[in-house]
Amino acid sequence: MTLNADYTVLGKGRKLIDGLEKVTGHAKFTADLELAQMLHARPVLSFYAHAKIIGINTDAALAMPGVVAVFTANDLVTKDRVINSRSSSVLAKDKVVFAGEFVAVVVATSDAAAQDAVALVEVDFDPLPVVSDMMAALKPESPIIWQHGVPQEGADLTTLHGNSSDGEDTVQTIASNMLEVKNFVRGDLTAGFAASSVIAQHTYETAWIHQAYLEPHAVVAEPGARLGQINVYTSTQGQYAVRNEVARLLSLKQSDVKVIPMNVGGGFGAKYGLIDPLVAALALKLQKPVKMVLSRTEDMMTTTPASASRLELKTGASSDGRVMAIEAKVYFDNGIYPFGFPGIIGMLMGGYYKCDNVAVEVVQVSTHKPQAGAYRAPGAPQVTFALESNIDEMAAALNIDPLEFRLKNGVKTGDLSGVGRAWTKIGLRACLEKIGLHPAWLNRHQSSSSDPDCLEGVGIAIGGWPGGFSPAGAVCRVDTDGTVRLHVGSVDISGVHSSLVLIAAEQLGVNPDAVQIVQGDTESGPYAPASGGSQVTVSVSGAVQDASVQVRNQLLEVAALELEAHKDDLELENGAAQVKGVPEKAIAIGQLARLAQTKAGGAGPIVAEGRSAMKSGAPGFTVQLVRVSVNKLTGVITPLEFVAVQDVGFALNPTLIEGQMHGGNAQGLSMGLYEAMRYDSSGVLNSANFLEYHFPRATDLPPFEAVIVQEPSDSGPFGARIVGEPPIIASAAALANAIKAAVGVRVLELPVRPEQLWKLMQTT
Amino acid sequence: MTLNADYTVLGKGRKLIDGLEKVTGHAKFTADLELAQMLHARPVLSFYAHAKIIGINTDAALAMPGVVAVFTANDLVTKDRVINSRSSSVLAKDKVVFAGEFVAVVVATSDAAAQDAVALVEVDFDPLPVVSDMMAALKPESPIIWQHGVPQEGADLTTLHGNSSDGEDTVQTIASNMLEVKNFVRGDLTAGFAASSVIAQHTYETAWIHQAYLEPHAVVAEPGARLGQINVYTSTQGQYAVRNEVARLLSLKQSDVKVIPMNVGGGFGAKYGLIDPLVAALALKLQKPVKMVLSRTEDMMTTTPASASRLELKTGASSDGRVMAIEAKVYFDNGIYPFGFPGIIGMLMGGYYKCDNVAVEVVQVSTHKPQAGAYRAPGAPQVTFALESNIDEMAAALNIDPLEFRLKNGVKTGDLSGVGRAWTKIGLRACLEKIGLHPAWLNRHQSSSSDPDCLEGVGIAIGGWPGGFSPAGAVCRVDTDGTVRLHVGSVDISGVHSSLVLIAAEQLGVNPDAVQIVQGDTESGPYAPASGGSQVTVSVSGAVQDASVQVRNQLLEVAALELEAHKDDLELENGAAQVKGVPEKAIAIGQLARLAQTKAGGAGPIVAEGRSAMKSGAPGFTVQLVRVSVNKLTGVITPLEFVAVQDVGFALNPTLIEGQMHGGNAQGLSMGLYEAMRYDSSGVLNSANFLEYHFPRATDLPPFEAVIVQEPSDSGPFGARIVGEPPIIASAAALANAIKAAVGVRVLELPVRPEQLWKLMQTT
Repeated sequence: MTLNADYTVLGKGRKLIDGLEKVTGHAKFTADLELAQMLHARPVLSFYAHAKIIGINTDAALAMPGVVAVFTANDLVTKDRVINSRSSSVLAKDKVVFAGEFVAVVVATSDAAAQDAVALVEVDFDPLPVVSDMMAALKPESPIIWQHGVPQEGADLTTLHGNSSDGEDTVQTIASNMLEVKNFVRGDLTAGFAASSVIAQHTYETAWIHQAYLEPHAVVAEPGARLGQINVYTSTQGQYAVRNEVARLLSLKQSDVKVIPMNVGGGFGAKYGLIDPLVAALALKLQKPVKMVLSRTEDMMTTTPASASRLELKTGASSDGRVMAIEAKVYFDNGIYPFGFPGIIGMLMGGYYKCDNVAVEVVQVSTHKPQAGAYRAPGAPQVTFALESNIDEMAAALNIDPLEFRLKNGVKTGDLSGVGRAWTKIGLRACLEKIGLHPAWLNRHQSSSSDPDCLEGVGIAIGGWPGGFSPAGAVCRVDTDGTVRLHVGSVDISGVHSSLVLIAAEQLGVNPDAVQIVQGDTESGPYAPASGGSQVTVSVSGAVQDASVQVRNQLLEVAALELEAHKDDLELENGAAQVKGVPEKAIAIGQLARLAQTKAGGAGPIVAEGRSAMKSGAPGFTVQLVRVSVNKLTGVITPLEFVAVQDVGFALNPTLIEGQMHGGNAQGLSMGLYEAMRYDSSGVLNSANFLEYHFPRATDLPPFEAVIVQEPSDSGPFGARIVGEPPIIASAAALANAIKAAVGVRVLELPVRPEQLWKLMQTT
Repeated sequence: MTLNADYTVLGKGRKLIDGLEKVTGHAKFTADLELAQMLHARPVLSFYAHAKIIGINTDAALAMPGVVAVFTANDLVTKDRVINSRSSSVLAKDKVVFAGEFVAVVVATSDAAAQDAVALVEVDFDPLPVVSDMMAALKPESPIIWQHGVPQEGADLTTLHGNSSDGEDTVQTIASNMLEVKNFVRGDLTAGFAASSVIAQHTYETAWIHQAYLEPHAVVAEPGARLGQINVYTSTQGQYAVRNEVARLLSLKQSDVKVIPMNVGGGFGAKYGLIDPLVAALALKLQKPVKMVLSRTEDMMTTTPASASRLELKTGASSDGRVMAIEAKVYFDNGIYPFGFPGIIGMLMGGYYKCDNVAVEVVQVSTHKPQAGAYRAPGAPQVTFALESNIDEMAAALNIDPLEFRLKNGVKTGDLSGVGRAWTKIGLRACLEKIGLHPAWLNRHQSSSSDPDCLEGVGIAIGGWPGGFSPAGAVCRVDTDGTVRLHVGSVDISGVHSSLVLIAAEQLGVNPDAVQIVQGDTESGPYAPASGGSQVTVSVSGAVQDASVQVRNQLLEVAALELEAHKDDLELENGAAQVKGVPEKAIAIGQLARLAQTKAGGAGPIVAEGRSAMKSGAPGFTVQLVRVSVNKLTGVITPLEFVAVQDVGFALNPTLIEGQMHGGNAQGLSMGLYEAMRYDSSGVLNSANFLEYHFPRATDLPPFEAVIVQEPSDSGPFGARIVGEPPIIASAAALANAIKAAVGVRVLELPVRPEQLWKLMQTT
């Protein structure tokens, strides 16, 4: 292992490279783009969740000043494509299947004109029966949404975020609203429960929640420089995914679609391409630039939020405190189109604790709601909430300290995950040990409150994420002015580029400010996986390192000739090459680049494209602690303290890792306390704006403490692990355990609203 | 040598890749760019060639509706930079030194408003004495333009096109309008002439001519996405040259200047950055996009045309027809700032023929005219006109056939050029042999005319160009849809990209249409030399080949795993990898790319950055033949037939080489027959538009026949040689010899106007 101490800039906390741009409002987002002759598009949304489209009258809208066109499904090049995912539902054909689906689109010379004209588009709907509630959808009397299964064609982009196809299918022979049933089984459940002296059994429920990024979906498309080419500027986590889907739906060559990933104001799994095909089709048809920026309400109604879940969980432990059996039946509401991630449910439910007897059934259900989508660690907070609640219950029943119980049972390197594969090297134990020494844990029974009606409690929970990884490329160049240019295919959604520059700076002995990083478009950029599933830093860092090492060698070779010294006797320091310890004759790397790229028969330009392809993942575990105060009289819950311990393997840039941890911890806590999208029985969302959709302000949150553990991974570059997902996973579970510790009540539903908690307290 | 026959697509003629875009008017040029909130700038030109600026009153211009600002030199960030070249003369300070210099600039919301306001800017000039004529400038009574020498700072971009710094300086001790005097001497001139039995001695003169690209200089600059960054869209031959000069003059970091090279409507040596610093300074100051497109008159008055020359040439040959001595004094008018290319003058004047005794003196002269600049093979047509005329004179005097004389004396591999270096492998002899067998030569004494007043004659001349070369990089990627993406730093001014795609297609076994080539900007693109001096194909092809070979290997490695075969048993054909001769199990390269870039622990994305750096040049020689008809009564010259034989080493794409030859041949003929920029005694150009500046229409030109010779070069990729420059070099010289053959008159001045020829015919 290479310790942080061995490095000059790597592993040292450093600012966000585009922080100044963002703080000063100079950073350009998609909505800021103003192109000449640009038109503005706004969608006409269905407010029916299920209805036939009898007719659409666009006359009044078209008569509005400034309106250029109003299109329905059959007007666009996408009309013959099968609709089987949110991204392929460019405009609804014949009928609508969720409230929020696009029925038509208005294009005008200003956004205001388009918005006004939307109200004048008259859609004649014939309402059809709505399947709104997930559990009601499974009853025999429920109408079947997909009588003949979901139509097949193409791929669904929304599943890109951390999906896994493990598990065994339960074959469905009768048409039902069960889209998919997967089983993850090992051992003998009956024997497991027979050997248990305590059993915890509960049904947990969680609500639909929205990713609640600040920047709504926004796309600008324009006809490109080449005939038939289209340029798409978009707020996305993955430009290649968007390119492929736009090309597929518009029947273009991939190389005729150039996707330029812009600054992203939050993605969290929801930005893999959604309105891009529509906007691209409009620009292609009108041969003018077209912009579409969803309003908050449109965005919340039509995008792909995280689905509600129901987790029926039964666990058993032996009298000496060993987990003997885990049995779970997990339902996830998929909304109208499939969004499956059963593998991750199975993997985590049977993968946090050593246990020989596990049976997890995952059921995906169709309803007339928007398609479910990925939200940071999809499925994991829900699984963790249920499992970690049961664990605390069993520990308590056995009178074992909950931390001791977790230390005893928590998985170690080589133990099985819930899909039957052994965990590679992991650091869960180190995290548990760390929290055990933390004052917040040691003082867990002390109360800071002077109000006798406010009871305090501390809860902990663990969380883990296997982490994606994918091959990637990266270009490193040295310019004649000494600038190191990194060209990458990754989208910088979480400060990842502020870590990548450190790798090049470290290798090349330059100040990180001398490293310019360019976020590539699909035409000129290197390939990288989409920035999601926690995979981008671990996947791309290796390619940057590979390219930087090659460039380092190239620089030293040129310098060796110039300094008449052996390459091995040289070093790169302060932006120059020198004989080790002899800075007097140093040659600036810009000068070396100039020599290399201008001298006849010389080395050639200083440049290399690095590649990387990790052989296995670099899972990350976290232990989170929450102290809450619960007001007995009102049920109001106040989080007072939050400590997150997370094993990141190697902290490439600790400042940004702390940022990731704070953000995810806050989201997880918010999931536990505030957030819920409520659909009524007609399938319409009742809280499609940020007034009615409750999430916390900064003042609603406790102080967050981020404790970084560095147990180097075997496979990640520099020993680094995945970072982005774990912070959100354990917060709600820790909250639930803290509430139990405070007031003795086991909460079974997220979010925990004061009214419900108060009611629970009355019955306990 | 690899013969064309060994290849599938390489060496086979193929269409211009962007021909369709250009023919249909879809291709975007800089002037086509429309950016939101874009302002339009127009310059205020001085019509004095030398004057003090007493004051500038901008009130009336500023009062015009639509006018945003009027700036003079001191208003811009460039104000403290030294003015010593055309590109550094952003706006004139205190005084003007050539007619056409920018004095002020108007920025308005429309181009029309800016243009109208230009007329209202009142500049109070105090005229100063003008040095206009080159030879008068050298007289003792002439005012001295640069009493203290030309101010020093920075570099001059205009010298990038084929400059050479060979030769010995004659030290100037007295201030004069001789900017530089260089001497290229070998052997003993006196002995050489003593051994000669015939001597030819003439003074030749050529006019100022303009590169006459169809697209005038055009630049759009806008504030970039990052704070302090500027984007420059420009019609240029070299984006890196423009970047460096803009950064230097605006005191920016190079990495803060992103230059996007657009389609170029002709460059011919004149487009290395000229109005870019001005437009960039305006965009930076106003923080808005600014466009400037020069009008034809502005362009012809203010850019850097090819200078007039005077060549005093004396040559001698022995009675057995060997060239014994070459003595030349060559004057080039540099205009106001230095534009030297003495090396090429010396190299060619003493480098076409084996000769032991050579003395060439090159004098660069300052005048109050626009700075001279590069025009396709700068200096070479002038040298060749003089030398090849003298050669014909000597051959005639010795009664030796002019082709035989050239075969006897023309340089071969290893013979010395005029700067004393041996020519690497060249193919002049092969070209001469080829023309000797051509019917146009064999039938040279036959006349096709029935008009007894029209006399016909055939002339030939040789030409050569050493050719630049420079290291370069290039990226090759394979996308999942099977598209091969080439990313290059070269600007496609002469169809070069239509050759580069063939190299990748050949290596990767794909249809050339599957190869997409991306012209890089300075931020994301690979490095390549500017497209000038005939260097770009030979310099970049090697990098493309290097990258393609690496990618080929990567593809075969992935395929070997999939096909369970040894890599060496595989081949790439029809866009797929297969066991040799077994297409049934072929795997498309897009599929291989998908496997490589998605499989965990796989190969990583299919991509490589190739580099190349030739060790020596790949000179190109040509022999050109013209048949003319001269009307005895009017002096009207009609070119009837034109045959160009050119050694290109290896014709990567013969179709485009023919295009290059036709174009250059036409330009050379036009130089001989039509083109001249005439400055009056006050230094003002009298023909600053395409009505008064005469160049030929298609109907004025004879049929061109291009005969390609392929004597492989030792150093060029695939044996390829430089191509772009030679076609223009020998045409005017061949024309002069044809006229002599037709009417017995030796023309000493270019262009040859009918009136002058008629007068000459009367005195001969």
